[in-house]
Amino acid sequence: MIKTDILIIGAGPTGLFTVFEAGLLKLKCHLIDALPQPGGQCAEIYPKKPIYDIPGFPEVLAGDLVDNLMKQIEPFQPGFTLGERADKLEKLDDGTFIVTTNKGTKHHAPIVAIAGGLGSFEPRKPAISNLADFEDKGVEYIIRNPELYRDKNVVISGGGDSALDWSIFLTNVAKSVTLIHRRNEFRGALDSVEKVQELKNIGKIELITPAEVVGLVGNDKLEEVVIKRGDEVFNRECDHFIPLFGLAPKLGPLSDWGLEIEKNAIKVDNSLDYQTNIPGVYAIGDINTYPGKLKLILCGFHEATLMCQSAYQRIFPDKRYVMKYTTVGGVQGFDGSKKEAPKAVIKAFD
Amino acid sequence: MIKTDILIIGAGPTGLFTVFEAGLLKLKCHLIDALPQPGGQCAEIYPKKPIYDIPGFPEVLAGDLVDNLMKQIEPFQPGFTLGERADKLEKLDDGTFIVTTNKGTKHHAPIVAIAGGLGSFEPRKPAISNLADFEDKGVEYIIRNPELYRDKNVVISGGGDSALDWSIFLTNVAKSVTLIHRRNEFRGALDSVEKVQELKNIGKIELITPAEVVGLVGNDKLEEVVIKRGDEVFNRECDHFIPLFGLAPKLGPLSDWGLEIEKNAIKVDNSLDYQTNIPGVYAIGDINTYPGKLKLILCGFHEATLMCQSAYQRIFPDKRYVMKYTTVGGVQGFDGSKKEAPKAVIKAFD
Repeated sequence: MIKTDILIIGAGPTGLFTVFEAGLLKLKCHLIDALPQPGGQCAEIYPKKPIYDIPGFPEVLAGDLVDNLMKQIEPFQPGFTLGERADKLEKLDDGTFIVTTNKGTKHHAPIVAIAGGLGSFEPRKPAISNLADFEDKGVEYIIRNPELYRDKNVVISGGGDSALDWSIFLTNVAKSVTLIHRRNEFRGALDSVEKVQELKNIGKIELITPAEVVGLVGNDKLEEVVIKRGDEVFNRECDHFIPLFGLAPKLGPLSDWGLEIEKNAIKVDNSLDYQTNIPGVYAIGDINTYPGKLKLILCGFHEATLMCQSAYQRIFPDKRYVMKYTTVGGVQGFDGSKKEAPKAVIKAFD
Repeated sequence: MIKTDILIIGAGPTGLFTVFEAGLLKLKCHLIDALPQPGGQCAEIYPKKPIYDIPGFPEVLAGDLVDNLMKQIEPFQPGFTLGERADKLEKLDDGTFIVTTNKGTKHHAPIVAIAGGLGSFEPRKPAISNLADFEDKGVEYIIRNPELYRDKNVVISGGGDSALDWSIFLTNVAKSVTLIHRRNEFRGALDSVEKVQELKNIGKIELITPAEVVGLVGNDKLEEVVIKRGDEVFNRECDHFIPLFGLAPKLGPLSDWGLEIEKNAIKVDNSLDYQTNIPGVYAIGDINTYPGKLKLILCGFHEATLMCQSAYQRIFPDKRYVMKYTTVGGVQGFDGSKKEAPKAVIKAFD
């Protein structure tokens, strides 16, 4: 059983910054995320895209924002349960909570902060009738461990950054890489497009366009994909088929937690502390809704900050926390680190 | 008469970021600030101090944060009325507002956003009975134009960064610089302290400590200060006396605008749009109050963002604004500039 003060569901920017604000209040945090790394959408979907509306950054790449946040929260030593989806919420008699993931990992905390963004990201799947039969038997929608593909024949389909970037990466790992896309046109970062062209020219990536995978063949595990290009239909031997058609958000199991839901988001009390209808459970960032809500990262930061103050009051109803400015009081990490404004005091000039 | 869409009172971080969020909605902004430069406290009081709780910045100097915000809002070409205090608010019959400064400059806008921080900063003054008689006749509390001191005899008093830094600076301008402090101990940036020591050693700064200026002498303009050191009292000829004892915030004229005030701050509706009791007048950042309010820069950013949406609805009641993410839609400046995520589309690989 993992124990913490604030259990944060979702390790996107809002969830990460919660660790910092909680840390200033000496509260410990643990984060659960279905994705294999922290950063949410920013890390998984658009790490190399610039964001222009983070205050103080005329431009910042989403991946760099995540890196900065990870550095900012480092002194507060958050725990992470990654690659697991928070599935079940139980309220104990003492008002604390147990959250269990799809892999059975249990977490215990007096406060739950749902910072789940647009929900857990589920891969968009191609319409192939027997697709489900081969899931984890040769069909994967997210590449979690590239070593799985070592010396294998891999077919990737898709026409965006993920398809291009993983095709490039896997040429160094797999026996063969075939990239299939239903159009001739690809969209991706310029250097990715150039690199794929180069790898195609030297025979490291085979491109089949405009084409689609329309069937899967195998016994117990995937052995062949059926490819349709125009009127031509043909089979191709392969060990893995990886359709990279993007991720679509789903509220998922959260919708069964007894939370008040509106427009696919969790209703919160924005006039006070972003608490949900379950006392002790907060929802912050893109996953919540209230009058005037904007699904912006900078709003999640504010919501996280106010939420932490409320959580503190809930955990320590008899203490009164007096806010100190970091510029004045510095930041004291749980790791013994201390950051503060350098001061020079001279007893007297000679 | 200066005309704009959103008239922002206060050019601190919250006021500055408002320009950005308004700009995304194609609304123009003009800012009024009593200080001679944008940035509010961050620029005037602690430009070289690190802030640790701006999301995405493990550490940022307050002055650098202001520079970044100025760069971020540049495409939206804000106007500035600096060095003037917003004194009077009039509501016209058509629901728009005229704001007049202490120097008589008039501004007209349908929306007023008060982002006045802790209020306008008034200098802390020493307790000298005839001090007011010499204001602007040799006594100044803020150095607005260093040229005023060219070839003059200047007495500065104070023991912090301002006193140290201006003493250093004025050695290159004034005929003589005398620094008086009631203690032997000084507090300032290390390099300032070292520089003052050096200038003292070569006779460019005279230090008198522990001492206080207790009287002023002159006819129509300042001629001498009376200095008390221990039991010793003596006069010193000088043209200017500059007490640099810091700035203290005062709500000032705003308190007569008919706004609902609570705990020296302006009450707003935090459940919707941070509007005050006067429709069309908003209060954002440290100057407002509501249940759970935290006077943090990051909260001002959020409040500014939601406020701009409400302002847009007020100005264009019949239009429905659909928010676009900057990562997707980029930023289009009023100056014709355009920032957006670089995209590469390849029609087909060769």
